[in-house]
Amino acid sequence: MKSKLVYSFGGGKSEADIGMKNLFGGKGASLADMAGQGLPVPPGFLIAVRAHQLFCENREKLPTDVNREIERGLARLEKLTGRKLGDPKNPLLVSVRPSACFAMPGTINTVLNLGLNDKSVEGLATVSGSARFAYSCYCRFISLFANVVLGVPIEPFLQILEEKKRDVGASDESGLGDGDLVDICRKYKALVKERHGKELPQVPAVQLAMARDAMFRSWDIESARSYRKLRKIPEETGTGVIVQAMVFGNAGKDSAAGVWFTRNPSTGAKEFCGEYRVDSQGTDMVAGLRTPSPIRNMKKEFPKAYDQLARISGRLEKRYKTVLSFEFTIEKNALYMLRVRQGERSAAAAFRMVVDMVKEKILTREEALLGVSARQVEQLLHPVVDPEAKVDVIAAGLPASPGAATGVIVFSADKAMERAMSGKDVILVRREISPEDIRVMEIVSGILTEKGGMTSHTAVIARQMGKTCVTGCEAIDVDEATGRFIAGTRVLHEGDEITLNGASGEVIFGKVPLTVPKMTGAFGVILSWGDSVRRLKVRANVDTPRDARVARDFGAEGIGLCRTQHMFFSEDRLSIMRELILAATKEERDAALARLLPMQRDDFKKLYREMKGHPVKIRLLDPPLNEFLPKRADLLVEIAKLEFSRADRTLIDEKRMVLARVEELQEINPMLGMRGCRLGICFPEITVMQVKAIFEAACEAARERIAVRPEIMVPLVSLVSEMRAQKDIIRQVADETMKRYKRKIAYSVGAMIEVPRAIITAGDIAREAEFFSFGTNDLTQTTFGFSRDDAGKFIQNYLSRSELCQRCGGKLEKNLSCASCEAKYLRKAENILESDVFHTLDVEGVGEFIRLAAEKGRSVRPNLKLGVCGEHGGEPRSVEFFDRVGLDYVSCSPYSVPVARLAAAQSALRRRMEGKKRKK
Amino acid sequence: MKSKLVYSFGGGKSEADIGMKNLFGGKGASLADMAGQGLPVPPGFLIAVRAHQLFCENREKLPTDVNREIERGLARLEKLTGRKLGDPKNPLLVSVRPSACFAMPGTINTVLNLGLNDKSVEGLATVSGSARFAYSCYCRFISLFANVVLGVPIEPFLQILEEKKRDVGASDESGLGDGDLVDICRKYKALVKERHGKELPQVPAVQLAMARDAMFRSWDIESARSYRKLRKIPEETGTGVIVQAMVFGNAGKDSAAGVWFTRNPSTGAKEFCGEYRVDSQGTDMVAGLRTPSPIRNMKKEFPKAYDQLARISGRLEKRYKTVLSFEFTIEKNALYMLRVRQGERSAAAAFRMVVDMVKEKILTREEALLGVSARQVEQLLHPVVDPEAKVDVIAAGLPASPGAATGVIVFSADKAMERAMSGKDVILVRREISPEDIRVMEIVSGILTEKGGMTSHTAVIARQMGKTCVTGCEAIDVDEATGRFIAGTRVLHEGDEITLNGASGEVIFGKVPLTVPKMTGAFGVILSWGDSVRRLKVRANVDTPRDARVARDFGAEGIGLCRTQHMFFSEDRLSIMRELILAATKEERDAALARLLPMQRDDFKKLYREMKGHPVKIRLLDPPLNEFLPKRADLLVEIAKLEFSRADRTLIDEKRMVLARVEELQEINPMLGMRGCRLGICFPEITVMQVKAIFEAACEAARERIAVRPEIMVPLVSLVSEMRAQKDIIRQVADETMKRYKRKIAYSVGAMIEVPRAIITAGDIAREAEFFSFGTNDLTQTTFGFSRDDAGKFIQNYLSRSELCQRCGGKLEKNLSCASCEAKYLRKAENILESDVFHTLDVEGVGEFIRLAAEKGRSVRPNLKLGVCGEHGGEPRSVEFFDRVGLDYVSCSPYSVPVARLAAAQSALRRRMEGKKRKK
Repeated sequence: MKSKLVYSFGGGKSEADIGMKNLFGGKGASLADMAGQGLPVPPGFLIAVRAHQLFCENREKLPTDVNREIERGLARLEKLTGRKLGDPKNPLLVSVRPSACFAMPGTINTVLNLGLNDKSVEGLATVSGSARFAYSCYCRFISLFANVVLGVPIEPFLQILEEKKRDVGASDESGLGDGDLVDICRKYKALVKERHGKELPQVPAVQLAMARDAMFRSWDIESARSYRKLRKIPEETGTGVIVQAMVFGNAGKDSAAGVWFTRNPSTGAKEFCGEYRVDSQGTDMVAGLRTPSPIRNMKKEFPKAYDQLARISGRLEKRYKTVLSFEFTIEKNALYMLRVRQGERSAAAAFRMVVDMVKEKILTREEALLGVSARQVEQLLHPVVDPEAKVDVIAAGLPASPGAATGVIVFSADKAMERAMSGKDVILVRREISPEDIRVMEIVSGILTEKGGMTSHTAVIARQMGKTCVTGCEAIDVDEATGRFIAGTRVLHEGDEITLNGASGEVIFGKVPLTVPKMTGAFGVILSWGDSVRRLKVRANVDTPRDARVARDFGAEGIGLCRTQHMFFSEDRLSIMRELILAATKEERDAALARLLPMQRDDFKKLYREMKGHPVKIRLLDPPLNEFLPKRADLLVEIAKLEFSRADRTLIDEKRMVLARVEELQEINPMLGMRGCRLGICFPEITVMQVKAIFEAACEAARERIAVRPEIMVPLVSLVSEMRAQKDIIRQVADETMKRYKRKIAYSVGAMIEVPRAIITAGDIAREAEFFSFGTNDLTQTTFGFSRDDAGKFIQNYLSRSELCQRCGGKLEKNLSCASCEAKYLRKAENILESDVFHTLDVEGVGEFIRLAAEKGRSVRPNLKLGVCGEHGGEPRSVEFFDRVGLDYVSCSPYSVPVARLAAAQSALRRRMEGKKRKK
Repeated sequence: MKSKLVYSFGGGKSEADIGMKNLFGGKGASLADMAGQGLPVPPGFLIAVRAHQLFCENREKLPTDVNREIERGLARLEKLTGRKLGDPKNPLLVSVRPSACFAMPGTINTVLNLGLNDKSVEGLATVSGSARFAYSCYCRFISLFANVVLGVPIEPFLQILEEKKRDVGASDESGLGDGDLVDICRKYKALVKERHGKELPQVPAVQLAMARDAMFRSWDIESARSYRKLRKIPEETGTGVIVQAMVFGNAGKDSAAGVWFTRNPSTGAKEFCGEYRVDSQGTDMVAGLRTPSPIRNMKKEFPKAYDQLARISGRLEKRYKTVLSFEFTIEKNALYMLRVRQGERSAAAAFRMVVDMVKEKILTREEALLGVSARQVEQLLHPVVDPEAKVDVIAAGLPASPGAATGVIVFSADKAMERAMSGKDVILVRREISPEDIRVMEIVSGILTEKGGMTSHTAVIARQMGKTCVTGCEAIDVDEATGRFIAGTRVLHEGDEITLNGASGEVIFGKVPLTVPKMTGAFGVILSWGDSVRRLKVRANVDTPRDARVARDFGAEGIGLCRTQHMFFSEDRLSIMRELILAATKEERDAALARLLPMQRDDFKKLYREMKGHPVKIRLLDPPLNEFLPKRADLLVEIAKLEFSRADRTLIDEKRMVLARVEELQEINPMLGMRGCRLGICFPEITVMQVKAIFEAACEAARERIAVRPEIMVPLVSLVSEMRAQKDIIRQVADETMKRYKRKIAYSVGAMIEVPRAIITAGDIAREAEFFSFGTNDLTQTTFGFSRDDAGKFIQNYLSRSELCQRCGGKLEKNLSCASCEAKYLRKAENILESDVFHTLDVEGVGEFIRLAAEKGRSVRPNLKLGVCGEHGGEPRSVEFFDRVGLDYVSCSPYSVPVARLAAAQSALRRRMEGKKRKK
């Protein structure tokens, strides 16, 4: 049996409902659904997506039987409205719109007032009693049909209109007379003839068939294709079509068109919002052509429609279980609903709305939890650039740490200190960050770097401190020596003011007002509901007692990563650390270690105190050591200058000695060099010192009756023999220290899994490791062979290729041709990546590795604890993956803890729902 | 039923044979086997390895029934010899030796002359008619027993002997009188009492039991444990013990001891070799105490024994199917065989021997193929340091490219050119190699660098050119500016002579004679036999027509990797390449590409010509671009100097411009940066140029009726979308070029698999790629997170930790204690790696990845071609793995092609044998 492809609605009845989205697309299904609910929807019919598929399969022709079904649908519509399409006396006018299952936002390809021709326009004039109205409708029809169906650009039509307005001295369309509009129609038609080569079709059935086919074809335009590719929308779905009787918000002062929100989209308050315009058609509204009135004015101006909309709001919120926005039209005081969809809303609003809707029993708690976006949570924790402010963007880099900051620029740590002391808000601008800079990160408002990626050290630390940061801003050229940076044609000097938007990566000239989104109680309510359903624990990456407190305040359930090398960045320790690294003999090394031991012990004790018995996972020293050293190039230049100025020989020799050691330690690829446990294996005395510090602190804390749960993590394990060697030392030193203090501390020893070899040999490693912590930053680097510090250049290209020429990589012209290479290659490039893999976990590659390692590890040690401590631990989509793959916890920067908590809860709920579905 | 643990042999019979190696160890089994063959072996008995296990399980005591079995074995021996152990009149003397399944070479722990005591020594004096002989035997017994069984150091015994010789003015032992020897015995016994605390045991049965237990315990000493760990010999096997009647080569002028080779170990010629010494015991021989006579002298001196050994040679070679070495003793003109084992031999000798043995019908061709070492093949292709030469080693680095070279040192490419022009052999010494240096690599004899690993670019190119190279020689300190390098206390200047040993990594002071091992016809014969059995194809990594010819001469079956960027290292092209990289606009880039196109086309045409229809796999440009650029530090110093000397502003500005671009391109981890297909995707015009060159060359070659089979390889693929994007361009440009030439060229497009993400998504990539070529160098880097350029430091430590303190990483003292850290931690560290993973494939990690990718790829595309083009393609153990995992070919440097051919043949044979075994 052939399936039905045309469904009618109107007159309080409907053949379709909201459950049939897949057949017609959301727009059509919701329209029919409202009609079926008895709401005032102009009658019409829907052509199913399947018809589009038949159209494509049949060489862009609809099969006869489908055409006949459409004819029958039209006949029903004519019967319902009592008018006929193209009737020269009292014509039925219709709108024709596409309705895809997955619509591309921002494309308007609606044809309005279809059914008008040179004759029926006169009939409309008579029936409506206004030639002006009829010709205005005709004008609109011609231009829309020409543009959407015939592919004539819209600009010349606008030009004709503008010229006429200028000729008659009218400031807007209302200043044009009947004759003017008739004249415009004539000119419009001439333009169609000229551009299209044929007359505007006058037979309404032909108009309808052509418009319908144009809707089908719109699915195939390049931008729609790219959009679908980007969003992974399957090509084979297609689009349905809505044919609906016109209503006219522009039928006089008793008519209007508007947009209605069932709640306040910025605050979430339960109050109707939106705006409308008297004597206007909906499309004007959307295009934002004239200033509208706020919705509250409707109470006076259209009290009946207002009450009706208020009732509909309550009814549909219950039915659709979300906040809604309507498009509506009032024609001669009668209300018509033209569209309903979920209302947009700010992060703060979203939280308030769903909590209210639970109170109103519209939503269950579970529905409320799933009704907010975890991604939006961060917005609630940081100040942002006032969305109302005018901004002058001079460059854009990577949005490395959210929030916004404004201040005067400086180019060195010393200057930052100096300016900050004098009470200024300071933004540190650097080519790249060096260890000296890290000590001033606490006192600056924001950081801007020319080099580095989203997960460069700078970015990681900035996020952790909740500090605004833009990295990899290759569009600027920083010259630290002369204290200035160049952005395009602008040169900015030390002391100039800029604003950073950490959420977008934008660098804004001058000082811009910032706003701190209000934190409503709803946020906390949702998080606590979430905590009761989530399985995945959330810990924080914390290096200092200060961060530990922030993390606990945000609900962290322990420390998932304490990077001990960050404890050495402060000024007094940096010099000891340098001694350690530059040590040429074991004696020198031991001396430096002896000085570091009490400092580490103190740090750990403070962390234990803050964490009050929650687990504290400490990673053994894992630096690319060169981060702690003076730069080779700087030394070379210094020596060259000293030699030239015939400086003291001993001074030069001293510098030469340092240079020699720096050169010895110099690495071509520090990321793959002497790092992680390689350091602890080559210099076991460093591990000995750190383990001593961990356990001396633990024993001392235990004396103070503080519960302690240290977990010791061996970084960058690639061989089980590395893990074994380090574990042996850890066990030895731990036993010995506990004996010395006569205390027993429960602790565990595990591996940080961050290179692919650890994945493929995870079974072996699990024999030695009591836990795995996946370091997804490094694992992403080694899995792809992408350096997070260098990948900025090509990842930007990878993410934005869909606008480039496939052949030469150049920007394409608007007509999709490439000016800079052979004309025959017009194919656009495809995006190589959909999202930055250093931000959102690469599920197919890195994710698959994590799944594999979890499986291998647990097959050997069933109670193996699994966690993540990379940057992805605070990214909602990634958190969902980690939950599904069965990890025990994620660890992220303190400011991301709430994000992760919510994302984990949502994932748990989705899994539960899927489980129920499967049972059915 | 309990198993028999003691087996007797002697008197022309034996209870054991060569097939029982696992029961007794090789030494014991071969001894019993010879006895069973009726050869003159002094009688004795073997104690099985199982007894050792029982000994360990039973708290270092042998169970009574085993003891009783041994007693019975002794009784049989006494019966056979007609003497009794400890008989004061005519004592039976025995030797006691360990015989492990896997023996550690270089450890001598034999006890000789056991059964002597203060009484039986007198009996022996009487029976032998020589008190001197008897006391000499007793002396030897006491010192050996004290050392091997009681653990007394050997030095004080030697001291006593030396003192006595000095006292009586004797130059050697033969100058000592009877009385002197009696006196030495007395002193020896006193020493035992003093050091051991007890008297030397006098009861022979006690001596025997103690010696036997000492053999068992020797299995457990630290060095043996480390050795087994290193060689992966299971701890639980243990050692057997041999108890055998003594024979005396030191019984007078009609007695002797010697070593006999059945063929010449250096040349492989079928002639008896070896040496012997009259009136001497075997152990003196092995320890090399006195100069022996060549074996040919035996013909005159001991004609009967000589003939007997000649006959035994033929018989045992047939039985054991290999060349052999014997230890023998002649006691009063009677020959005794004391040991047989496979004879050591040089690479050249090995090949000659097995080919001869096939002619002699001792071996089948298959046995011959398996009887040579693929690893030794490279020795046959390069000159080596004369093994006879005295060398003064001043430093050692990594053996990066085999062979040896001698010449004067220079520190720059220009100087190398200058000196080479004047006819000198030149050795280029550099901190690290820069692209300018590569152009002179052809003209230098050897390369020595302070930095870089075994698979650094320098090393790869050197191996490919067959040029001697030592890299990562961190023991030297190169100062290029002053033209000298420091090695320990030595300072060498430009023009000084050194010799490099590329096989060992040694740097030798001065000029040392080199020898070119003679290439015998046997080598070619073996290879051709191998070619007929191997499945795995062997290709070569080749970048120039010259290399291509070498590769074909060595039997390469195509090019597996042509690194197009190496085509740009020559001086004229380097500058164009720099233009390309420094290009700021597309126009500049296009101009540079247009100049490179004809050069590339020409290169490719030459390669096609050389390869005569064999496949030529061309990798698209894959440079870390910074390799082509001037170094940032150099520029900085230059600018600093220019500024200081107030040089011309425009000159400084020009340098600054270059610096700015270099800084822009600068990468923190170039290995993980803008490389591989990332370049071709961001700048598709480079791919377009290269593909044009490949197909223009192919079409032009086809016109000359040369068969061409280009295979185009997309490097560093991590995402299938990368592969798709590059393949699209390749197909477009290929089609277009072939159309232009009106030719059809069969070609394929595939992916180089060298990052772990390509492994885990190999199924997806195989949908787009027609072949996979595993780049094991980069895959090893990313799998481990090891930079091959930087890993030298810790990999050296990883490979040699078994001599280090586990606690502090310091060198251990001889007594295994650590001077530099707390004394209680004496445990030795375990080696983290067994071999350099950049040399021998890491089978558990990287190998497992290759297996996984092959499986995933072929499940999607069953005819997917699989190859390897990393450095491991020429390493025998790795080649065997590649064969077993089912790859189609390996590709290696031209000089390694014969190695790979042989290794592939051996692997095929071993697989065939395993298959047969399984069938049984």
